[in-house]
Amino acid sequence: MLVVMRMDAGEKEIRGAVRKIESHGLKAHPIPGAQRTAIGITGNIGVVEPALFETLPGVLEVIQVSNPYKLVSREFRPENTVVDVGGVKIGGRDLVVIAGPCSVESYDQTLRIAKAVKAAGAHLLRGGAYKPRTSPYSFQGLGTEGLEILVRVRDEVGLPVVTEALDIDVLDQVAAASDMVQIGARNMQNYTLLKRAGRCGKPVLLKRGMSATVTELLLAAEYILDQGNSQVVLCERGVRTFADHTRNTLDVASIPAVQRISHLPIIADPSHAAGRRNKVMPLSRSAVAVGADGLMVEVHDAPEEALSDGNQALSPAAFEELMAEIRALAPVVDRAVPSYVGS
Amino acid sequence: MLVVMRMDAGEKEIRGAVRKIESHGLKAHPIPGAQRTAIGITGNIGVVEPALFETLPGVLEVIQVSNPYKLVSREFRPENTVVDVGGVKIGGRDLVVIAGPCSVESYDQTLRIAKAVKAAGAHLLRGGAYKPRTSPYSFQGLGTEGLEILVRVRDEVGLPVVTEALDIDVLDQVAAASDMVQIGARNMQNYTLLKRAGRCGKPVLLKRGMSATVTELLLAAEYILDQGNSQVVLCERGVRTFADHTRNTLDVASIPAVQRISHLPIIADPSHAAGRRNKVMPLSRSAVAVGADGLMVEVHDAPEEALSDGNQALSPAAFEELMAEIRALAPVVDRAVPSYVGS
Amino acid sequence: MLVVMRMDAGEKEIRGAVRKIESHGLKAHPIPGAQRTAIGITGNIGVVEPALFETLPGVLEVIQVSNPYKLVSREFRPENTVVDVGGVKIGGRDLVVIAGPCSVESYDQTLRIAKAVKAAGAHLLRGGAYKPRTSPYSFQGLGTEGLEILVRVRDEVGLPVVTEALDIDVLDQVAAASDMVQIGARNMQNYTLLKRAGRCGKPVLLKRGMSATVTELLLAAEYILDQGNSQVVLCERGVRTFADHTRNTLDVASIPAVQRISHLPIIADPSHAAGRRNKVMPLSRSAVAVGADGLMVEVHDAPEEALSDGNQALSPAAFEELMAEIRALAPVVDRAVPSYVGS
Amino acid sequence: MLVVMRMDAGEKEIRGAVRKIESHGLKAHPIPGAQRTAIGITGNIGVVEPALFETLPGVLEVIQVSNPYKLVSREFRPENTVVDVGGVKIGGRDLVVIAGPCSVESYDQTLRIAKAVKAAGAHLLRGGAYKPRTSPYSFQGLGTEGLEILVRVRDEVGLPVVTEALDIDVLDQVAAASDMVQIGARNMQNYTLLKRAGRCGKPVLLKRGMSATVTELLLAAEYILDQGNSQVVLCERGVRTFADHTRNTLDVASIPAVQRISHLPIIADPSHAAGRRNKVMPLSRSAVAVGADGLMVEVHDAPEEALSDGNQALSPAAFEELMAEIRALAPVVDRAVPSYVGS
Repeated sequence: MLVVMRMDAGEKEIRGAVRKIESHGLKAHPIPGAQRTAIGITGNIGVVEPALFETLPGVLEVIQVSNPYKLVSREFRPENTVVDVGGVKIGGRDLVVIAGPCSVESYDQTLRIAKAVKAAGAHLLRGGAYKPRTSPYSFQGLGTEGLEILVRVRDEVGLPVVTEALDIDVLDQVAAASDMVQIGARNMQNYTLLKRAGRCGKPVLLKRGMSATVTELLLAAEYILDQGNSQVVLCERGVRTFADHTRNTLDVASIPAVQRISHLPIIADPSHAAGRRNKVMPLSRSAVAVGADGLMVEVHDAPEEALSDGNQALSPAAFEELMAEIRALAPVVDRAVPSYVGS
Repeated sequence: MLVVMRMDAGEKEIRGAVRKIESHGLKAHPIPGAQRTAIGITGNIGVVEPALFETLPGVLEVIQVSNPYKLVSREFRPENTVVDVGGVKIGGRDLVVIAGPCSVESYDQTLRIAKAVKAAGAHLLRGGAYKPRTSPYSFQGLGTEGLEILVRVRDEVGLPVVTEALDIDVLDQVAAASDMVQIGARNMQNYTLLKRAGRCGKPVLLKRGMSATVTELLLAAEYILDQGNSQVVLCERGVRTFADHTRNTLDVASIPAVQRISHLPIIADPSHAAGRRNKVMPLSRSAVAVGADGLMVEVHDAPEEALSDGNQALSPAAFEELMAEIRALAPVVDRAVPSYVGS
Repeated sequence: MLVVMRMDAGEKEIRGAVRKIESHGLKAHPIPGAQRTAIGITGNIGVVEPALFETLPGVLEVIQVSNPYKLVSREFRPENTVVDVGGVKIGGRDLVVIAGPCSVESYDQTLRIAKAVKAAGAHLLRGGAYKPRTSPYSFQGLGTEGLEILVRVRDEVGLPVVTEALDIDVLDQVAAASDMVQIGARNMQNYTLLKRAGRCGKPVLLKRGMSATVTELLLAAEYILDQGNSQVVLCERGVRTFADHTRNTLDVASIPAVQRISHLPIIADPSHAAGRRNKVMPLSRSAVAVGADGLMVEVHDAPEEALSDGNQALSPAAFEELMAEIRALAPVVDRAVPSYVGS
Repeated sequence: MLVVMRMDAGEKEIRGAVRKIESHGLKAHPIPGAQRTAIGITGNIGVVEPALFETLPGVLEVIQVSNPYKLVSREFRPENTVVDVGGVKIGGRDLVVIAGPCSVESYDQTLRIAKAVKAAGAHLLRGGAYKPRTSPYSFQGLGTEGLEILVRVRDEVGLPVVTEALDIDVLDQVAAASDMVQIGARNMQNYTLLKRAGRCGKPVLLKRGMSATVTELLLAAEYILDQGNSQVVLCERGVRTFADHTRNTLDVASIPAVQRISHLPIIADPSHAAGRRNKVMPLSRSAVAVGADGLMVEVHDAPEEALSDGNQALSPAAFEELMAEIRALAPVVDRAVPSYVGS
């Protein structure tokens, strides 16, 4: 932490600030400059709020220096974490594709789509049993029945399953039924849910909140790791900006930003970012090219009749095309798209 | 809903779109124009996703017209809702001020501050027992002990209490202990929590999410009303933008925007918007002048030692000054700041 | 400037960084900490880019400390600047109101509206002769003819005139014809125009760009002051965010933020922020309450037929109401709304 | 345009709205619905502001339907425009790379870098002679001398030159000296400059403003085309958001969005988006993969000593690596990176 003094601050104010810093068991390092003095602070800064010093006489501003995260950082663990989801490895050289319908609507629909995405080369099946919806009047998912369908389809088709736990009430049920528990963007700072996910015994897919910084995303993951679960995959799914040509603005640069700071894998969700089908393909290529560890894509075989987000779902044929493009791209970024790896 | 056809769409495409619309039990109203045709849709549109029509041949775009909210809208209930919090009325002519520490830190601290804010004229006491914190290493609140302190202080001082329910686990406990249950910005789209709050039997203070539109805020409230609880007060607390001179950008215009569309009261939280003490006073005046039904302000008698958000807390003396300013402002916007109204 | 070293940086990297800093004629002040070392830099930092140090071995990040502006800062000039516009003083205790049509459409229209706003108590007349329009097919202003109309109306009505200089071609003409030259939001970083405005001999009204930070706004003003013209008034007119209930989000907190850092006056333009008439009144109150030195409001006596921005113009009757509200508010914030002060 | 009536609007209000619409020479098409009536409007809508109808009794809102741009749209010209810059074609199958220093600092520096980027495979040379700088105290470019250096280096090295025209004063000089005139992000809505660029006789590179929508970008281009110059290349360079891990957020989705609506080529500038060297490579790949027609990349052979933006410049060696990656990527998106094509 660095306390920057005003230009007109005199010896008295500087000594006062130093005393205040030391009174908290910290060390103060004054740096006299041509125009003003700054005071570096070292010690156990974690417990100190900048407010402590910001309001002292003669202080212009307080600047925080240390990163607030630990377990998720590369300084803590230099090598990449590889997350194992039912035998599928995310975070290594393999480029992993999660695909399926936005919502589980019926056994037949889910089975059909699961077979289609597996045939096209997907590695994991997605499908929402519990759906977070902006309006209480929208379809809220099949719930327990949806989970049962996912279990049956997984057994039949052989793709490990990723599905969202909407709240702590259903977390255990979701963890039991699935191979990876998804925490949605709206829940990225639902700390109780994060803590429980840290004890749920399954890998966690954590989506970036709609207006979360990379630091906040990493701190949300830190909540999970702090409970003993280091099997966390992050997901960039677009952020909210003024731009109105897509539903959200896919912030591709967040992917190398996370990879530089953290050892956790990060994938992209081009479907939610785009909000419309015709952008899913280019955004998928874009995310792979920037270095994402995988993709999560919505696929529906009758998108016009989907009970949610039909707008952004690819048809099975379009998904096949996407997989072909991804396979062509992968070697360029030194990745491989593995063949069937499910159990 | 309005389907806009491309300029080069012919009779065939238009007839195709009309047929598709009618196949969903809706009525299609073609509007031929100089350059292109648009097709108005009426009927039970609620169940239909725009995707149904967006991908038809010849269609340029689909525009949604109807508002998605019902119970919260002025069309549904023209007169203002007045919410009763332990005898304090929010949403009428009275300007209501909620004040207290960010976190309940101890019985003594809470009692001292409660007495101070009551003496200055606050109507309700705030204080967090459960704290949502970006980092798992920050102080997370005293929990149950904090609630017990709030109950004791309320009994002693006589100010009704507002405190946050962080998750569904603690909602009932919080509802039992407090006079108004707060749902924080990070939980604005925690739908399970919203639904439970709709059945908790206490008034709810719902804060706007960091990047929520006014429509999303109203739909979040709709979740609560839909469960039978219409005692909801909204709270503008600043949104996330590129601007870096405050922690969040207080969107004062959201207040008249909500008041035009909805019958629910709306207050402002200048402390969280500002993020620093020296902006709390001007932002408070600004919110009252724009027409807010009240304010929620953080007060601490030793802000430098506060366990959370000390940066933005007013001292009791500054809070007294604030109340004086508010009292002077109120009549200009045809409001009154009532004297002690607690039970 | 502060160079923060990585946790794993050793003596060698630290010495390397120090040498590099000193090789630029600067002084290096290492601050060893528990976890890592930071190096404070003093000297003539202005000429140094952070990049110089950011890429050195062992460096985590470089943090800039000094403020980049000088002439506009309170450190440079502690007392408020008062700008004199044809006898009207902006920046003192007086609350100044600039009103008039968005565009000058005709002599009759401008005269009628000028008389109306003067009667209601406005101090300065606004009206665009040159209009920046998003589309080349929108009305672009009457140009020279518009300026001539403004001169005639000023002489007849006696209100000093504020009008926009769209480019350097017309700047001299605008400066000659008006009492204050406006630089619009889209031109806030048109540096050639700013420099010329610094030599135009008239006060300048500088509007904040649509996504400009307060620092960038102040640096834009610095360009004008640097050319010898310190008669600059800043204007908050709303910034671009995701929020869609107003055209722009009026960032009221920018007003006290500017006033804390700079001695320049700052007013608000609620009309452009709101984009719709029904928000102009509450936003005006809000801006006055937050401490603005004045308002700029669009008024039209036939808003439905206005050639630009009719949506947001107040009728003369509504403007009268606004002035009444402002007069009631002013004393609360220790301001006065002066009576007629024009020459 | 669509006028949406309130639910409680009666026959009288609807007839009133229809009459008002017809009084402007437009046709009104009422669409009675289950809950409310909407009125479609056709005719010469271009001249009508929504405000005309928004304030009528019984009107809830007015929705605009037609696109405001013409010449830039695919509806106007279905096939791609290919822009010829000194023999280099942008907008066809070729992927074009523009590279060079941020600023022209000296003949030697420019020559060295030009040779290096040409050797690595760049097709066009960039280099700023006039630099837009946030602070008046930053290096502002060599001006005329910089242009002369560019001309000499072009003649010697054989790469056509792209350089920025900062204002209308220097536009003709820049157009005479260069092969393509750049209009920077801060000038995207400098309409006088756009109009002159439309008559300058050289191709124009138009960068997206920091907070411009795709519609605004296209309308800015429309200003240029409207003056007879259809040789316009657009450039995505990142937009301003809350995200702080890059200087700007590269909005890769804007590229397919523009390509769907417009026939104009669009390239990406990963250097300005990233703001730091280590993100330039992944963002370049990302932009190519999403379908950009080219890249503009900053290269400096002594980035630590660059007079501007050294932070984001690649070394010649890193640029060579980038070109290798781009060449590997191109075929995957059905593009080719041509060998030397300059005159």
